[in-house]
Amino acid sequence: MHRTHTCGELTLSNLGEQVILSGWVQKSRDLGGMTFVDVRDRYGITQLTFNSDDDESLRAQARELGREFVIKVAGTVIERSSKNPKIPTGEIEIKVSSLEILNKSKLPPFTIEDETDGGEDIRMKYRYLDLRRNSVRENLVLRHKMAQEIRKYLDSQDFLEVETPVLIKSTPEGARDFVVPSRMNPGEFYALPQSPQTFKQLLMVSGFDRYFQIVKCFRDEDLRADRQPEFTQIDCEMAFVEQEDILNTFEGLTKHLFKHVKEIDLGEVPRMTYADAMRLYGSDKPDTRFGMQFVELNDIVKGHGFPVFDNAELVVGINAKNSASYTRKQLDALTDYVKRPQIGATGLIYARVNEDGSVKSSVDKFYSEEQLQKWSEAFGAEKGDLLLIMAGTTEKVRKQLNELRLYVAQELGLRDKQKFSPLWVIDFPLLEWDEDSERYHAMHHPFTSPKPEDIALLDSKPGEVRANAYDLVINGVEIGGGSIRIHDRDLQSLMFKHLGFSPEEAQKQFGFLMEAFTYGAPPHGGLAFGFDRLVSIFAGLDSIRDVIAFPKNNSGRDVMIDSPSSIATAQLEELSLALDVKKKNSN
Amino acid sequence: MHRTHTCGELTLSNLGEQVILSGWVQKSRDLGGMTFVDVRDRYGITQLTFNSDDDESLRAQARELGREFVIKVAGTVIERSSKNPKIPTGEIEIKVSSLEILNKSKLPPFTIEDETDGGEDIRMKYRYLDLRRNSVRENLVLRHKMAQEIRKYLDSQDFLEVETPVLIKSTPEGARDFVVPSRMNPGEFYALPQSPQTFKQLLMVSGFDRYFQIVKCFRDEDLRADRQPEFTQIDCEMAFVEQEDILNTFEGLTKHLFKHVKEIDLGEVPRMTYADAMRLYGSDKPDTRFGMQFVELNDIVKGHGFPVFDNAELVVGINAKNSASYTRKQLDALTDYVKRPQIGATGLIYARVNEDGSVKSSVDKFYSEEQLQKWSEAFGAEKGDLLLIMAGTTEKVRKQLNELRLYVAQELGLRDKQKFSPLWVIDFPLLEWDEDSERYHAMHHPFTSPKPEDIALLDSKPGEVRANAYDLVINGVEIGGGSIRIHDRDLQSLMFKHLGFSPEEAQKQFGFLMEAFTYGAPPHGGLAFGFDRLVSIFAGLDSIRDVIAFPKNNSGRDVMIDSPSSIATAQLEELSLALDVKKKNSN
Repeated sequence: MHRTHTCGELTLSNLGEQVILSGWVQKSRDLGGMTFVDVRDRYGITQLTFNSDDDESLRAQARELGREFVIKVAGTVIERSSKNPKIPTGEIEIKVSSLEILNKSKLPPFTIEDETDGGEDIRMKYRYLDLRRNSVRENLVLRHKMAQEIRKYLDSQDFLEVETPVLIKSTPEGARDFVVPSRMNPGEFYALPQSPQTFKQLLMVSGFDRYFQIVKCFRDEDLRADRQPEFTQIDCEMAFVEQEDILNTFEGLTKHLFKHVKEIDLGEVPRMTYADAMRLYGSDKPDTRFGMQFVELNDIVKGHGFPVFDNAELVVGINAKNSASYTRKQLDALTDYVKRPQIGATGLIYARVNEDGSVKSSVDKFYSEEQLQKWSEAFGAEKGDLLLIMAGTTEKVRKQLNELRLYVAQELGLRDKQKFSPLWVIDFPLLEWDEDSERYHAMHHPFTSPKPEDIALLDSKPGEVRANAYDLVINGVEIGGGSIRIHDRDLQSLMFKHLGFSPEEAQKQFGFLMEAFTYGAPPHGGLAFGFDRLVSIFAGLDSIRDVIAFPKNNSGRDVMIDSPSSIATAQLEELSLALDVKKKNSN
Repeated sequence: MHRTHTCGELTLSNLGEQVILSGWVQKSRDLGGMTFVDVRDRYGITQLTFNSDDDESLRAQARELGREFVIKVAGTVIERSSKNPKIPTGEIEIKVSSLEILNKSKLPPFTIEDETDGGEDIRMKYRYLDLRRNSVRENLVLRHKMAQEIRKYLDSQDFLEVETPVLIKSTPEGARDFVVPSRMNPGEFYALPQSPQTFKQLLMVSGFDRYFQIVKCFRDEDLRADRQPEFTQIDCEMAFVEQEDILNTFEGLTKHLFKHVKEIDLGEVPRMTYADAMRLYGSDKPDTRFGMQFVELNDIVKGHGFPVFDNAELVVGINAKNSASYTRKQLDALTDYVKRPQIGATGLIYARVNEDGSVKSSVDKFYSEEQLQKWSEAFGAEKGDLLLIMAGTTEKVRKQLNELRLYVAQELGLRDKQKFSPLWVIDFPLLEWDEDSERYHAMHHPFTSPKPEDIALLDSKPGEVRANAYDLVINGVEIGGGSIRIHDRDLQSLMFKHLGFSPEEAQKQFGFLMEAFTYGAPPHGGLAFGFDRLVSIFAGLDSIRDVIAFPKNNSGRDVMIDSPSSIATAQLEELSLALDVKKKNSN
């Protein structure tokens, strides 16, 4: 037998018991005639004692133990003289009577402790050692717990988890599809799903009524900061529903998770239209943990001879509360920040509300004290506040001010990772203009239903058509989104036409779905949450990589197993393929 | 609002309520001035009534409804005059006050009823309609329920569900790997996992202690009768355990599932060694729903001048109880059965135990009545029994008799799908000889631990080395299996050597795992259950295809979405690949 107990469960109530423990050597130290060894497993740490007076050779053995050795010990639970109140086992120790080394360990390439000395690269190469660290493992325990709670909640709401295929159809639209050559069908390929979208819609046509799946999805694209080629979605769909039903159901899921995983009562999740989100935050995923909403100033700042404002389409600002004490240097840093090429602003205007109520701005020569007081009023500013104002074309300046708002909030410590502010953003536009291809693309996806009252605008003002589409945002991070779908064949054809598909293309790619719509498709809609992202928010982490057991790096490589890798020519031949790498390079 | 209730919940307790229902038209009929429409959803069927006396135009609308139209009705719950006790809603009907057609339906290509007129091909092409049939949907509801119960049980046993990567490393050994070209790493490929084997072992090295995952796996191979290129495993691993711990834990899971899903108390699961299974059933996955164990007859049949027996390595038979009345024609059919090329026997000897206790055999001229009585005794035969005997080389004749045993049991109605006989088969051989490659292969996989007492035989008698490996068999179907793993680097190297890997190959493919073993790998083991197979057993079905929402056909094709399919040349170029189909064909 390898153990009678884990390393996390023995307490004073076990005094005198004969026990067997197995685990890893966390550390050991000598003190007089004694050796103390901390043995660790997933469940905790227990202190072992070896005493020369009792058994000289056993103690000698113990002194040979290195860090991360795997050992099995038998012994008696005794009370500890110097107790450690920080851990559940801190009041006892094991007086060891026998010790067996189950496996030795080389010296690990970094320390296996909460705060490690290992850099990202080495920890990824030895991910199996990195995963031994409590802080890393706890993220995955959290992930497990969240998945369990999600399934519990959705099961209680009559959702059925249905597995949809991983080997699906490659489509010309699927520029970011991973493809999989088929040996049995030479020259043909499967694709890995970017989402189970069409399958879940077919399940609604099938009358499954409520579907969900926690499912891997795949996207072969340049991996920006925090993307992974394979990621996990909480994918859901409901029939006979309107947007309101879906928002309520998944608000329920969100609340359930916060309550049962983090013991937080979330309260009602506010809703905001896309238009309002852009106007008030310059973003479709506003961080609402703090205020600092945009204040539009055109009415009061224009016509006073300051050309930057007079020539701008929009003058808009934020109030950084209690920040009038920002030094010139700090203000210059903010200006430098918005002038960075990624943001691209030309400058930043500021105004301080002094202790005496007077306002001092960087453009005083254009504005009287009385006029500046109007600024202050517009912001609802108080003594000690700092007003930060930008000007430009509407869309651009909103984006720029959004960046500044987040940056300033970060500086002011307003982005508290222990605080959670969820928000539904609704009424997204159906289409967005793509400069590169010079045509409209579906903002969500081609199956999203336009709002019935906006369908008439499809021809005349496609950019103004709103969709029954919605996102859940928490702390400025898009957790997921969805839409009410089209369930009418003709409307779906019309959508494909507006998205630039020829009827033949539409038929070839999505003929099966459009045909399904002719056999009694119910009204339906759904959403998908990014599970990796949701877990990282719950864990208070910035990166999804920290909540994935074996993540890939920015080049899509798993450096631990060294993948991807070359394959044998014979294998390629079996797949009716040849490498053409040179051609690629010379392009 | 689309509905106040589902189509499965209204009863007499709702009498007089105003309700709204949505669903599909199952059928409709006219009777005098009335039209009755059955409306169906996932939850049930409710009868709607339309009366010309009340509203002539509404009834006219109702008469236009076709099968599978999607409708929404409002009305009042009233008591039914002719009640249907077979369904929960059978005592009420809805007197409809308004009717809305949410979507029309063309006439479906087959009838959407439990017994359909649609053949396999047409049902697969229109799988979304096939899934509307209760019998098909119920299989997937069962699957959902089983997955929930599996997770509940394993969670209660401290197992953590950890997602392992789908994009992993292709290995030269992985002849059946699906590969995935990487756009970011031209000329390199990922592979899809045939199982998460190495990752779950690494999680044990990481101290995760107890891991599970319900996970898609992939195998690119010729699809025999009941295989799928993508299939689902219940994948599990435990640290600090011996075989006994694993068998107990997963016997617990099996019992839990039978109890909570089928309300069956399974009792203790018997265990049998591989050697006994081969000796008593000629199979490592015996169907133990019925007896009919093999009886070896060498001692009593040899040396009586019957050359077939005298020259055979093994003479072995089964007792078909109460089957002495088999006609000559039936017996000839049995002989023909075992002579089929797939089975390849040269003949079948039989002996009847008559009502008077005398034994009449097909080889009477070689054996006296007294000698035949000894046969009867060996089988423990009673009046009316039929003894079926085969002869040949041990391994072959056992396999042949196994086929006959199953065939006869099928004929005798002994393979009852409502009966469940689980069995652990243990002590599998570590290695099996492969005729094609003329070397030993790992019977389970290369990470399986030999029994310590047999390691010494690795050089001298590799075929006799037993492994700490086990299978769970239910009703003659292998549900899953596993093993205690090697956790010692040197032993793992030795295994690779015996499996014909050069040290370089072993290092290239599994270096990361062997290195992990040098950093404190605990003793560990685990197993994987075939989830599709387990669900099909629970559902009393022969094929796993019936428990998969969107299965592929024998050519690995999804005929509904028409996948796999060709992809654009531009897409191939982006992947640094070229098709080489001609070369393949001319090989």
